Amino acid sequence: MMTLGHIAEQLGLLLKGDANVEITALAPLSQATGQHLSFVAKAGSLSELADCRAGAVIVKGDWAEHWTGSYLVSDNPYLAYAKATHLFDNRPTLSQKIHERALISPHATLGSDVTVDAGAVVEAGVTIGEGAWIGANVYVGQDSHIGAHSRVYPGTVLYHGVRVGHHCTVHANAVIGADGFGFAPCADGWTKIVQLGGVRIGNWVEIGAGTTIDRGALNDTVVDDNVILDDQVHIAHNVHIGARTGIAACTGVAGSTVIGQDCTLAGMVGVGDHLTLADNVHVNGQCRVSRSLTEPGLYASGTAIQPYSKWSRSAVRFEQLDEMAKRLKTLEKQLGALAPSSSRHRGDAS
Amino acid sequence: MMTLGHIAEQLGLLLKGDANVEITALAPLSQATGQHLSFVAKAGSLSELADCRAGAVIVKGDWAEHWTGSYLVSDNPYLAYAKATHLFDNRPTLSQKIHERALISPHATLGSDVTVDAGAVVEAGVTIGEGAWIGANVYVGQDSHIGAHSRVYPGTVLYHGVRVGHHCTVHANAVIGADGFGFAPCADGWTKIVQLGGVRIGNWVEIGAGTTIDRGALNDTVVDDNVILDDQVHIAHNVHIGARTGIAACTGVAGSTVIGQDCTLAGMVGVGDHLTLADNVHVNGQCRVSRSLTEPGLYASGTAIQPYSKWSRSAVRFEQLDEMAKRLKTLEKQLGALAPSSSRHRGDAS
Amino acid sequence: MMTLGHIAEQLGLLLKGDANVEITALAPLSQATGQHLSFVAKAGSLSELADCRAGAVIVKGDWAEHWTGSYLVSDNPYLAYAKATHLFDNRPTLSQKIHERALISPHATLGSDVTVDAGAVVEAGVTIGEGAWIGANVYVGQDSHIGAHSRVYPGTVLYHGVRVGHHCTVHANAVIGADGFGFAPCADGWTKIVQLGGVRIGNWVEIGAGTTIDRGALNDTVVDDNVILDDQVHIAHNVHIGARTGIAACTGVAGSTVIGQDCTLAGMVGVGDHLTLADNVHVNGQCRVSRSLTEPGLYASGTAIQPYSKWSRSAVRFEQLDEMAKRLKTLEKQLGALAPSSSRHRGDAS
Repeated sequence: MMTLGHIAEQLGLLLKGDANVEITALAPLSQATGQHLSFVAKAGSLSELADCRAGAVIVKGDWAEHWTGSYLVSDNPYLAYAKATHLFDNRPTLSQKIHERALISPHATLGSDVTVDAGAVVEAGVTIGEGAWIGANVYVGQDSHIGAHSRVYPGTVLYHGVRVGHHCTVHANAVIGADGFGFAPCADGWTKIVQLGGVRIGNWVEIGAGTTIDRGALNDTVVDDNVILDDQVHIAHNVHIGARTGIAACTGVAGSTVIGQDCTLAGMVGVGDHLTLADNVHVNGQCRVSRSLTEPGLYASGTAIQPYSKWSRSAVRFEQLDEMAKRLKTLEKQLGALAPSSSRHRGDAS
Repeated sequence: MMTLGHIAEQLGLLLKGDANVEITALAPLSQATGQHLSFVAKAGSLSELADCRAGAVIVKGDWAEHWTGSYLVSDNPYLAYAKATHLFDNRPTLSQKIHERALISPHATLGSDVTVDAGAVVEAGVTIGEGAWIGANVYVGQDSHIGAHSRVYPGTVLYHGVRVGHHCTVHANAVIGADGFGFAPCADGWTKIVQLGGVRIGNWVEIGAGTTIDRGALNDTVVDDNVILDDQVHIAHNVHIGARTGIAACTGVAGSTVIGQDCTLAGMVGVGDHLTLADNVHVNGQCRVSRSLTEPGLYASGTAIQPYSKWSRSAVRFEQLDEMAKRLKTLEKQLGALAPSSSRHRGDAS
Repeated sequence: MMTLGHIAEQLGLLLKGDANVEITALAPLSQATGQHLSFVAKAGSLSELADCRAGAVIVKGDWAEHWTGSYLVSDNPYLAYAKATHLFDNRPTLSQKIHERALISPHATLGSDVTVDAGAVVEAGVTIGEGAWIGANVYVGQDSHIGAHSRVYPGTVLYHGVRVGHHCTVHANAVIGADGFGFAPCADGWTKIVQLGGVRIGNWVEIGAGTTIDRGALNDTVVDDNVILDDQVHIAHNVHIGARTGIAACTGVAGSTVIGQDCTLAGMVGVGDHLTLADNVHVNGQCRVSRSLTEPGLYASGTAIQPYSKWSRSAVRFEQLDEMAKRLKTLEKQLGALAPSSSRHRGDAS
């Protein structure tokens, strides 16, 4: 529990109203009660303030007329809410100890205040920065590096030669540095191309649960600073992901593709191999990115969801589209021959 | 090995024929031999009975005329088969012991007959119901709960504050309670929103291998009773999945979406964020659910598979569809002007 | 470091030039310097040779005129490069020891020179072939088998009754043998069908990180020799994958489907259940394989990526496609009535 005044001070926000209101938690507008701090993320939610029973809210200054109680003023209430969650952080604290059932190679180097939990295995040549956390049953392969204050959740596997920067979070059961999918066709099927590169992850990167980032074939796979990857994302060998790009769950990026800075890929997007995506490219959910995208902007593919019976008629027609286009062209010619002076369709590029 | 009579008694089914037939296993109609019990799941399979060599079959009463041997009568032979598999259960038995290499916090509470295998870590504040199984190298975070008779397979990670009901099964390397993908854009890229909620899983829920269910931002992510989730499913923060809903492999559900009861999502479906799906909604494989579905029924999106050369012609035309529609409208107008008395197309909503 | 002459000898390739060039690493044409060996994978890359500074390259014999330095001659330079990566293998060596913190059942049988790392659990009835590697925190369930010289990376879980052949690689956090997704609908929701079958993996198979291969319902799920599976692939129960087939990341194959030999499925493909794919079928990325494919060839589905505003117009028209087709037909009839002698479109099958 803390007072509204304390929260205002911590967040550096102007307080209007009662600084002594006791706040026990954050809550959405519709669920907040007197001990809760809530927030208005966008103007469209202002109408909810009339019925809101929060002890206080975070609003923009010119939104305050809609609210009669105490409030904190922020130019960006959603960002202020994000910062406020850190004041209510309920994650278990770290022991800052090496558990007796962790296995640390004598040839590994650990900074101060490092936590290594039971069952974790840290191989020779590994370096771990100060304050970092290696969760239970994590594996850190030979010569890998975990930067200061990074958190590696239980069950994650880092192969050899993987470099993770500082202040990163790697969620449970992620795998960084597994072999890229490289094989040369041969008489028996496939000859494995040993993946000789590594993986380099920048600073302040978040990697979701079950996400896989493969090591490079000859060079490294690279994820730049401040990138955020959701759960079950797949990053193939030799991909390069630019700074501040965000990738939602279940998205896959194929080999050697370069994604720019400040991009967002929504969920279950598939990006083909050897492509280049410019900075500030944004891709809709489940989009099939089959070509390079040189211009910033929002992209999409696929079709909308329909009741099955309607969809199936559209889907059948999709297979006839080329024929339909040719019939349309034929009709235009025939009609033009019948009525040569009438205004014909222009710009026909079919 | 057991007799047909014993099986009939266990399943509560009427037996016609020889109760002393020795049955060693269940088998499909096409592969069954004299020591096998088989079953007819649907009328369309009755023709297979002529060549079937099973020792006995499970059939509906009015299907028995197609079969000359011993049989068990069931109104729902597929359900009877499902129940019969439990008589032949070949899964390893549980030791009902805490392995000496498991690590149980002195502040955890375990019911009777609990099995905890080697390498498992159970943190402070955890409660585990009677008869539950915590597999090898599983991690159960602080203050989490596993209900009675639930089975957690090796390598699974449960974060802190995760509640799993009784008689649940969580398959290997699943992750429950990882951080939802919540970040506020800021000057440096992204400010993390600490995910303060938890996860609540009901009773009799099955969760597949590698599946991820994220914790909520402020409230809990909720999966209701009798839900079945296949492998590599992703459930984002604050999703609510209604009772008895089934979700096939590789499907992802984005944040805050509410899915009703008795729904089925086929494989690799993507469901957008903040949507509502009514009860009894059924979604085809790989469908892109980009809007709420307020009516029960079957839905689909996308296009059918074609040989590449045909598909590419359709795909090019898809990009010209709006122009084609306009040309079609122009033609209709021109033809109407030429032949004003002829019957024009009605209901044109383009 | 090794000499070009040694590499030529190891790969069985003809050397032209200086056998004493010291080679420290492999590198792409554009990055290679004097101590690097590079390669020309396809004729299209020959123009890069002019500026290439590699110590030596691997080329086809009739490509050598484009290169003035030392070179190795190969009919298949890409395959020669694949073989060369094995000469520069930088993966950590195996200890060939059972770590004191591994847990091996007294009823398991291990061949010579087997490595079992810390935290691994090997259950009763397991057999492990000579030279195999069981990584840290791996779980090998009862009565399973790992063939000679196979490598199982950390965190992988093999359930009971799983058979992996020799010279296989299973990457980290993969799960083999979890329950297939089999349930019979019943009054309460679902009755579990205990999955009584197992999994059989052939020899020289590669399985990617986080990939899941479910056990069969009554029979086994089968992956034949020389199959390569990328990361986060899902293979459902009773699937059969033919020899030498390659499946890229994030692809899912639903239950009981049979995929032929020498097929390739690109990334994020979804294959429906109970289908048959012929030998030499190749499927484009994100394709929805909703029917059996009886002819070899390349297949695709979906639509191309477009800027959102253009795409949304196409997507709206997709929903109107059936109506458009009918209007087109109406126009053809009307025009035919106006101009009965003009040449009408033939082959209209709408």
